[in-house]
Amino acid sequence: MPAETPDADLSWLPEMTRVAVIGPSKKRNYFFLRAHVTQFKGAVVAIKPGTTRIPEFPDLPVYASIVDVPDPVDFAFVAVPREHVHGVLEQCLQKGVRLVTIFSAEFSDAGTPEGRHLEEALRALLERHHYATRVLGPNGMGLYYPKRGLAWRPRYPKNPGHVTLIFQSGGLSNLFIHTAGYRALPLGKVFSFGNGLDLDFVALLEFAARDPETGVIGGYLEGIRPGQGARLRAVLQACEKPVLVLKGGRSSAGQTAAQTHTASLAGARRAWETLLRQHNVVVAEDFDDLVNLVAFFHCYADLVQASLPLQRACIISLSGGFGVVATDVFELAGFTVPPFSPAVQARLDELIAISGTSARNPVDLSMLITRPPVIREAVAAILEDPGIDLVYFELPTWYFDQSHQVYPDPDFMAKIVDIFAMGPRQGKVLVASIPHVGFSALRQEALARCTAKGIPVFTGARDVVRVLTKVRGWLDRRQRR
Amino acid sequence: MPAETPDADLSWLPEMTRVAVIGPSKKRNYFFLRAHVTQFKGAVVAIKPGTTRIPEFPDLPVYASIVDVPDPVDFAFVAVPREHVHGVLEQCLQKGVRLVTIFSAEFSDAGTPEGRHLEEALRALLERHHYATRVLGPNGMGLYYPKRGLAWRPRYPKNPGHVTLIFQSGGLSNLFIHTAGYRALPLGKVFSFGNGLDLDFVALLEFAARDPETGVIGGYLEGIRPGQGARLRAVLQACEKPVLVLKGGRSSAGQTAAQTHTASLAGARRAWETLLRQHNVVVAEDFDDLVNLVAFFHCYADLVQASLPLQRACIISLSGGFGVVATDVFELAGFTVPPFSPAVQARLDELIAISGTSARNPVDLSMLITRPPVIREAVAAILEDPGIDLVYFELPTWYFDQSHQVYPDPDFMAKIVDIFAMGPRQGKVLVASIPHVGFSALRQEALARCTAKGIPVFTGARDVVRVLTKVRGWLDRRQRR
Repeated sequence: MPAETPDADLSWLPEMTRVAVIGPSKKRNYFFLRAHVTQFKGAVVAIKPGTTRIPEFPDLPVYASIVDVPDPVDFAFVAVPREHVHGVLEQCLQKGVRLVTIFSAEFSDAGTPEGRHLEEALRALLERHHYATRVLGPNGMGLYYPKRGLAWRPRYPKNPGHVTLIFQSGGLSNLFIHTAGYRALPLGKVFSFGNGLDLDFVALLEFAARDPETGVIGGYLEGIRPGQGARLRAVLQACEKPVLVLKGGRSSAGQTAAQTHTASLAGARRAWETLLRQHNVVVAEDFDDLVNLVAFFHCYADLVQASLPLQRACIISLSGGFGVVATDVFELAGFTVPPFSPAVQARLDELIAISGTSARNPVDLSMLITRPPVIREAVAAILEDPGIDLVYFELPTWYFDQSHQVYPDPDFMAKIVDIFAMGPRQGKVLVASIPHVGFSALRQEALARCTAKGIPVFTGARDVVRVLTKVRGWLDRRQRR
Repeated sequence: MPAETPDADLSWLPEMTRVAVIGPSKKRNYFFLRAHVTQFKGAVVAIKPGTTRIPEFPDLPVYASIVDVPDPVDFAFVAVPREHVHGVLEQCLQKGVRLVTIFSAEFSDAGTPEGRHLEEALRALLERHHYATRVLGPNGMGLYYPKRGLAWRPRYPKNPGHVTLIFQSGGLSNLFIHTAGYRALPLGKVFSFGNGLDLDFVALLEFAARDPETGVIGGYLEGIRPGQGARLRAVLQACEKPVLVLKGGRSSAGQTAAQTHTASLAGARRAWETLLRQHNVVVAEDFDDLVNLVAFFHCYADLVQASLPLQRACIISLSGGFGVVATDVFELAGFTVPPFSPAVQARLDELIAISGTSARNPVDLSMLITRPPVIREAVAAILEDPGIDLVYFELPTWYFDQSHQVYPDPDFMAKIVDIFAMGPRQGKVLVASIPHVGFSALRQEALARCTAKGIPVFTGARDVVRVLTKVRGWLDRRQRR
């Protein structure tokens, strides 16, 4: 068993000022170098032996070795052939680089004795230097940190937030970051640690748990190193932030695949389930579920701290059929869609009285969608009903395309999003659902505006009840702790 | 109990040449009239007493009553206040209109004695005339029939197909039609029958079962009329086409809502489940599931007729993490992700050998995505493996955005879709999965191209296994019948 690594002290990240890209590749059109040069908010240098200038980046300082850089370097992104990684890491240690991403792969992930041997040599090197330089990877993407513009791919979202992701898959990290950009869900830090030679799920979780920039923690985890169980339990036990995890390798073929992927021992499914549940980790069923959970906790972090009930739902839709289907989904998942209290029902009967509507729960607004002031009054009344815990509002995208309307209202989207925002303002959960049916740019705009107002957006009732069921479980277990 | 209605003979629909819009509304900016004028492939007339010309449609013939139209009228769309519907229907009967949509609502759906009485009067009128005119509605959208350009909303998809939908909800009909347009999934006919005064789920199912233009039948059903059970069983028993149904009102609150919506008795959930399963109806869990099922049967109607096995899956992805998660989802749902047969594995080991990939099942193509010819060879080898029944190929949208690539390939999408299409060409199911993460126009284009080549596209493994599980059940039950 490898020696324990020291605590990951990454509290200096907000002050990172200079990064190096080691091994920029003309063949790859300087993909990673470009990502750093175009996005990082501090200084960037390139390390490339045998040249002092890269024509595509005429102003970029280029050095043969990182030890030649005259100023301190906080972070280095290493993409060199695997046989050169050891030498490069040695130089980073010599230079006093604080954090290194080793993108290069074919170490323990190759599944060969040679790969494992090369990785062990890196570990021995780090141990000899008491982990003076911390490492993400090999076979990892490293760190996305929008607050400082650190990003391993070009055109990543720029908006920083309070969600920290710790991912054992670079591909899923990319997918999450793109998805978050599409939804305007701001991320704080994304760690893609690959084989986890040094910094791994446990070490990064320890950091995230105490990191003042982190409010919600999401993870994709295939496995941990032998002997780390007690440390994982300890950090989960102490962590007061919500931890949302997608566990890879839950099936037998998935375990085998995980071993190929990151040389992880995914471990017995039952043991993992027990451990995660015992420590109130919210377990996602797949990638979409993880995204939805993160979005929910991002939007309602404060509300769920207050332990609100999440049982009695009001369903609002634009069609009787939508309402019936959503009601079925909520009730069959153990929620209730109860009648309104008499005073609220009386108020809604006044407001929602035109042909084709229904003022009862599930509410069918139908043609009233053209009258946002009426909807505002109705939602305000519903939010005041003591018998309603949460509101589910389903609205197909085409309503946002006002060119479909007889009397187009250019402020329609703003008005609707503002109505949604009454939910959190009144201390109640309101979730929006916008099915995926084209009008994509409009859906994206609506998503972004909703998220900015703290309203998570889903694609249907099924996704919502899955998330709400897990949030309820999390609240219950937290109370019992 | 109302008398049985005669068989719905709608075999004349392909020859419909003239339609009337009764009650065009200036206040609604002639919404329904515009939908018919801009899309119907034959002649359109408007019925509006007190005028002979609508300035917005200067060339449109306008009559005070449908009986004044000199030529035969096949179809009329009626949107007049409910108190005028009886008189208008009487005139349609007099004129010999073959099919009428009554959009007007507040009949039995209003839940009032007055509404029920008005609907009963319409029924009595039809009975007196032996249903010489057939009716969709009231409280329904009627018929969308792209082959003749009949559409109740403007800008509906124009491409006709072989899927017939029978929906007890206008809102869900609209949502399905928009969704199908987004996916380029061609629809044959969509019936929105609302309260089902005359043509209802059972009558339209009887028609669809024998309609030569219909290959796949989808339905949204809240309930049937008392006494129709035997007729429903008979048509389901005899129907050889796949029937895919979303049942509304499965929960207690959902049943109550269904009664408000279309005055349907949704009935006991268990009884419905038994009836639908006995007759090999594929039951969707929600709207997305129904869309996915329809897309699958649309693409693989021929293959599933051949009763192919659907158990042993090959997972192909662009990242180890995607592959692990998808493998878990498939295996936990009862599918297997087995090793390839030795000869196929040897071939794949040759093809998929660069750093970061995995040639084992689940296959991780990683950087090979930039080399479609290699992928083509690999998929061809996999499709020949006798131990693999189906291929799941997951590909995030951004790969289609070649501006992200070092060496952009303008034909990338066409090449990939062509590789997907090898599945059905070789008599094996291949499904694509493109997660929803922005790049929306590209996703839409990829969806359309895939559907045109007979490849259903999903958003993740969970949706796929849900559909495949139901298809397997359908195949098993069909064999036992």
